[in-house]
Amino acid sequence: MGTAMCLPLSDRGYAVRLVGTFLDVAIIENVKTKQFHPRLNVTLPASVVGFQHTQLAEAVDDSVELIVLGVASAGVNWAIEQLVSVLKKPVPVLMVTKGMVPEENSLSSFVDKVAQALEKALGFKVPAAAIGGPCIAGELAVRRTTGTVIVAHDLALAMQLCENLQTHYYQPRPSIDVIGVETCAAFKNFFAISVGWAHGALDKLPSVENKALNNNAAAILFDQAIREMMVLAQSLGGSAESVWGMPGAGDLYVTCQAGRNSRLGQHLGRGLTYSEVKQGPMKDDTVEGAELGLSVASALHAMIRSGRLRGENLPLTLALLNALQHNTSFNPPWGDFHRSS
Amino acid sequence: MGTAMCLPLSDRGYAVRLVGTFLDVAIIENVKTKQFHPRLNVTLPASVVGFQHTQLAEAVDDSVELIVLGVASAGVNWAIEQLVSVLKKPVPVLMVTKGMVPEENSLSSFVDKVAQALEKALGFKVPAAAIGGPCIAGELAVRRTTGTVIVAHDLALAMQLCENLQTHYYQPRPSIDVIGVETCAAFKNFFAISVGWAHGALDKLPSVENKALNNNAAAILFDQAIREMMVLAQSLGGSAESVWGMPGAGDLYVTCQAGRNSRLGQHLGRGLTYSEVKQGPMKDDTVEGAELGLSVASALHAMIRSGRLRGENLPLTLALLNALQHNTSFNPPWGDFHRSS
Repeated sequence: MGTAMCLPLSDRGYAVRLVGTFLDVAIIENVKTKQFHPRLNVTLPASVVGFQHTQLAEAVDDSVELIVLGVASAGVNWAIEQLVSVLKKPVPVLMVTKGMVPEENSLSSFVDKVAQALEKALGFKVPAAAIGGPCIAGELAVRRTTGTVIVAHDLALAMQLCENLQTHYYQPRPSIDVIGVETCAAFKNFFAISVGWAHGALDKLPSVENKALNNNAAAILFDQAIREMMVLAQSLGGSAESVWGMPGAGDLYVTCQAGRNSRLGQHLGRGLTYSEVKQGPMKDDTVEGAELGLSVASALHAMIRSGRLRGENLPLTLALLNALQHNTSFNPPWGDFHRSS
Repeated sequence: MGTAMCLPLSDRGYAVRLVGTFLDVAIIENVKTKQFHPRLNVTLPASVVGFQHTQLAEAVDDSVELIVLGVASAGVNWAIEQLVSVLKKPVPVLMVTKGMVPEENSLSSFVDKVAQALEKALGFKVPAAAIGGPCIAGELAVRRTTGTVIVAHDLALAMQLCENLQTHYYQPRPSIDVIGVETCAAFKNFFAISVGWAHGALDKLPSVENKALNNNAAAILFDQAIREMMVLAQSLGGSAESVWGMPGAGDLYVTCQAGRNSRLGQHLGRGLTYSEVKQGPMKDDTVEGAELGLSVASALHAMIRSGRLRGENLPLTLALLNALQHNTSFNPPWGDFHRSS
């Protein structure tokens, strides 16, 4: 996704420096020699220049106006350390990485954590923003029409970034609902697992003359996901509009069309447990939604114990967490759905 | 859908009398002789008995406890006339038919119109309710897990019907937001056309190395649809929860997976106009979403002129209506999306 962001930046006239992590050496070598990104399978515009992670200081020099951070969530702390070693002035950081950080009785957004960590290490405040909303990287990388939300506590920053990035195919919209947008950005992956379940479960249902699929069940799960993202976002102080808007419903829609979260769900639907999937058909895949769920499970349970969340309003969340944590089969508790208060 | 409703009714122990219209003579003949519904391609439970339209008085006798009305929206007036001729007492009517009726400066729901017409002709009030939410008939007809909303002004009636119909695979939930649920039930078909557009438009886009699809664009349209259903429902007095819940987002999700509305949208995406589609590839198909749009267009424009709706909050609605009314190509006005206030 970091690479896909080069497209609108480059089309808006920026000289883009694409810096890889230590895991991306071969990719960056391809960009340097052929302008080609092998994972996305696209040729990048000439104004995009590849830099190895060892060249970070060269890439982030005094002329830099914006840093777009797109490492995997597991690499965020590494990226902060790297940035701290080269940042000499408060350049805005735009986070593409999505995630939530568990706290004692709460969850924080990645972008707030990164901003705090940078300020602490650097001694000055860095303007921070994040991107949410429905965006498949491979589509943006070939300039397919894409809409997103750019969120920051500072509306002027969000608006400025939208203005800087907007092209005919890339339509970002500003928001100040940091916690709402980030809750959706993180949890939509988790809930996409449950929607995928319905499509996998079809394989275990008796075959029928009329070849009916299992879309009605997928729709209940889709909808319960929106309902529980609403509960989660609002309990953390987020707004309803982020949940039914692009960051929540819109991004969940696109995440359910394809991808690893939905693939894990399909395997669960066929009757495999999480560890069976991770040891078998998806042993080389990072499933962000599952990792998010497992990383925040204790914090969510603490929030329920303290009364900040009501467990009966999160039947899907709790059932899916339980299946992931204890490697049991996932069975949606249909009767408990759509009863939240 | 009327026939699919026989499944939960029959599994809850009701003796179900399935009455066809004058267009369903062959179907009912199949039910009578073989318990088989050829359109749904399912064998019906033995407790479902077929009746031709000429046998309505026999079917709707004194023992009837509930009437489920599932005619196409064009047949509602005919169905009212028929019912008036046989109804001797206030039996509850549960509407499966979805639609909105244009008024001078507003829109009404079908269920309210039907209740008014029945009361006027019969001289007594008939308890009326309607079903919204994501339900593909062919899936319900083979007992696939399905969730819906049963809506009535009278909460006790909605709750009673949910209780009467609930089975392990059919999970209805009560609501009193008649106008919100019915606005979504009608307009989700209309907006599914626009989401289908994105998938059809892919065929006209230049082919790319990475085989990118057009899901990002579909997601923007999906989301703008929710946004505009929110504007429409709330302007008519409906609640936000119906729009982001099963009747709106949930039903739109399922409607976008397949069906005629989405098929029309795909043809529009390939560059055909509405009349070209209706004279060509879909000449035998009723596209409910398009018919709904055309039937309410004047009322919507009147609502905008009177200030009851703001046109700038409905860019997708107006662009799609314009394309349908004037047989011009549909081009989503991306820049106007997600700016509503």
